[in-house]
Amino acid sequence: MASSTWVPDVVPRSDFSLANIPFGIAVTADGGAPHAVTAIGNHVIDLKRLLGQENAGSVFPYLKDHGNVFDSPTLNRFAELGRDIHRQVRLTIQDLLSVDTKHPEFLKDNAALREEVLVPMKKAKMHLPMHIGDYTDFYAGYHHAFGVGSMWRGPANALQPNYTHLPVGYHGRASSIVVSGHPIKRPVGQIIIDPAAEPKQPTVRPTQKLDIELELGCFIARGNEMGTPIDVNKADEHIFGYVLLNDWSARDIQNWEYVPLGPFNGKNFASTISPWVITPDALEPFRSKGIALESRPELQDYLKEARPENVFDVQCEIDLTTPEGDTSTISRVSTKNLLWSFPQMLAHHTLGGCPMRSGDLLASGTISGTKSSELGSLLEMSEGGKKEVLLAGMDARTFLKDGDTITLRASCGEDGKRVGFGECTGRIFSAVTR
Amino acid sequence: MASSTWVPDVVPRSDFSLANIPFGIAVTADGGAPHAVTAIGNHVIDLKRLLGQENAGSVFPYLKDHGNVFDSPTLNRFAELGRDIHRQVRLTIQDLLSVDTKHPEFLKDNAALREEVLVPMKKAKMHLPMHIGDYTDFYAGYHHAFGVGSMWRGPANALQPNYTHLPVGYHGRASSIVVSGHPIKRPVGQIIIDPAAEPKQPTVRPTQKLDIELELGCFIARGNEMGTPIDVNKADEHIFGYVLLNDWSARDIQNWEYVPLGPFNGKNFASTISPWVITPDALEPFRSKGIALESRPELQDYLKEARPENVFDVQCEIDLTTPEGDTSTISRVSTKNLLWSFPQMLAHHTLGGCPMRSGDLLASGTISGTKSSELGSLLEMSEGGKKEVLLAGMDARTFLKDGDTITLRASCGEDGKRVGFGECTGRIFSAVTR
Repeated sequence: MASSTWVPDVVPRSDFSLANIPFGIAVTADGGAPHAVTAIGNHVIDLKRLLGQENAGSVFPYLKDHGNVFDSPTLNRFAELGRDIHRQVRLTIQDLLSVDTKHPEFLKDNAALREEVLVPMKKAKMHLPMHIGDYTDFYAGYHHAFGVGSMWRGPANALQPNYTHLPVGYHGRASSIVVSGHPIKRPVGQIIIDPAAEPKQPTVRPTQKLDIELELGCFIARGNEMGTPIDVNKADEHIFGYVLLNDWSARDIQNWEYVPLGPFNGKNFASTISPWVITPDALEPFRSKGIALESRPELQDYLKEARPENVFDVQCEIDLTTPEGDTSTISRVSTKNLLWSFPQMLAHHTLGGCPMRSGDLLASGTISGTKSSELGSLLEMSEGGKKEVLLAGMDARTFLKDGDTITLRASCGEDGKRVGFGECTGRIFSAVTR
Repeated sequence: MASSTWVPDVVPRSDFSLANIPFGIAVTADGGAPHAVTAIGNHVIDLKRLLGQENAGSVFPYLKDHGNVFDSPTLNRFAELGRDIHRQVRLTIQDLLSVDTKHPEFLKDNAALREEVLVPMKKAKMHLPMHIGDYTDFYAGYHHAFGVGSMWRGPANALQPNYTHLPVGYHGRASSIVVSGHPIKRPVGQIIIDPAAEPKQPTVRPTQKLDIELELGCFIARGNEMGTPIDVNKADEHIFGYVLLNDWSARDIQNWEYVPLGPFNGKNFASTISPWVITPDALEPFRSKGIALESRPELQDYLKEARPENVFDVQCEIDLTTPEGDTSTISRVSTKNLLWSFPQMLAHHTLGGCPMRSGDLLASGTISGTKSSELGSLLEMSEGGKKEVLLAGMDARTFLKDGDTITLRASCGEDGKRVGFGECTGRIFSAVTR
């Protein structure tokens, strides 16, 4: 990879250094159709237009049989081309944007094309990057599962017996996944106000326990045939890339509804993802071991990975901005706090033959660390709503208020070579619409 | 509706009388593309070709702004046109197929077109009728929920406190829904062989408790805006039609994995649906009250229906055919055995703002009656695997064997005016593939 880019104004702290090269979908011109883009500094690059150039075949020769794969409202078709193609495209883009590019005439020294394809980020409207067929939410954040389980059942019974044997997960709702920036309406639901009263009598009202969950999301590149499991050590070939995911949760709705079949309306009103798909290649230098338990039963063969560094060490943070505009960082935590890797989740999900499709989304489950400053949900930070989380501006929260904005961020690498996810943000508005 | 059809060989017991007129997707010619069809007797009718006729505009005037909506590999676009259009199309088809049609020149007396559009059912290959965005499985079969709950927790604690307050449901897997006839591979999974041993130690092997669940499925015609719930008394306008659904279940996999987030690999390896979407209009004469509980808490307003007959009285049966070819009917049960209606499921599902999309599928949950001959799963028939279900040919089952075929059927109405669902069938093959 070339060491620096000719693109102007790429600040050292930018999420989108030359080491990143994520993929996304944006509208870049008034009235235009959504199409594929990448990002560098504070610009997006119109990949549809880049690949639409007459001489693009000499720069992207390996794409010649695939038409203009970037002229599409989702990245699914590109994702399906497989890891080799993604890798080559990223390398080509890194070259084109480097000061010492092998193809200076194509873009770097072509003022007309530069003008066309480099779009200031603030002028690009980002869309969902993929058409999501199915969405699965796992529960692989060990410290979260332990912390929440302890709150409800005490530390001795915090985790179910299956927890260390398989990556527990459940099917989520694909239709309510929205891209960063989409406003989030406080959901109404059945809620038990007095948990001591018998028989239990629910009330229908807006949730009073609106929460967040910091998660890592993983998009599927290529699926598997129905009936044919994915090998844990070949799962990488099925992964397109990663996003941040905020699994908004209404704890009071969830608490009443979730027995015996799992969370439903407490989760399905909205989940927000960051718009940029970060490639596995960009994250490769930041591999890490996951959580090491003191004692852990031996893994079943289908979950055994050859590579010990099976997760990524990406630093995340959660910002809460009050309606008054005061922003507090309420958590900082690494994505290495997972007991299960995405290859393990994929191997388990497909063990019985369940088919994955390009664009399917898996999420890690809430990521928390061991310290009180490393928690991925307000449920944990507020100890179940009993303790206030102090904010800037003399404010405090147990759960979210109308007008609050939550912004997730994540990045790894040193300044100038940073691989960041951009923002995953959403602002709460009132359940009562007039 | 005209009283009889000119189509030959429509036997009185046919599921597909003139009173039915379901919608489906089929390939009707070698190498052809899937497109919309309807059924009458033992013929399918090629709706794409019918609507493609030059003079079709005079017969289907209300479709003139929609192009050939039947020239599509799914019914989603047609479903989105809404209930009024579905109603008119069904009435027009009923007219065209009647002996006293108003348009005899269009089809009845047009030998060339008849030859083209009437295809013997056995020559048509049925496909999934809809592109399914999200699939939700409810648990509205009261006697099933009570029976299974009693088995696990005793009759006093059989149902969770929320059960009579809201239609409990969970998100299922859309990618593994297959159409009737698709072979079903016995899934492998983590299973606890000795439930008494501590600590619990799972083994990975093919399920030994492969089961069925008889359910009614409901396809969404038009969705709702995210954030805007569907009114229970306007939910009919969002329903396209109904299918049979067999929610294949691996009870031993499910039993180990399902706490605390619900069923996952025990369900997501396959669900089979019948290929014909039966319209609400065809089922309208068969409305019925659902289950009346001795004491039931008052419903929340958003679940109160103006119409007391909120479910359908459709007679279902489950046939099990052994590898030797002996067929036994192991259950007969009515779909009226539901505590919650589909309008109530829709109102609850969207209460917090969750968006439905055209083609989304809701399923009722397993339908069982009160008698031992009216059970919708082998789990119930075999009392958790303790009692053999006797079959023809001196055979018996607790759960399914490789080579077994399960066929669900359902219909209502008297001979000659029958509204039937056709078959929902699947044959089990071994988990070990060579």
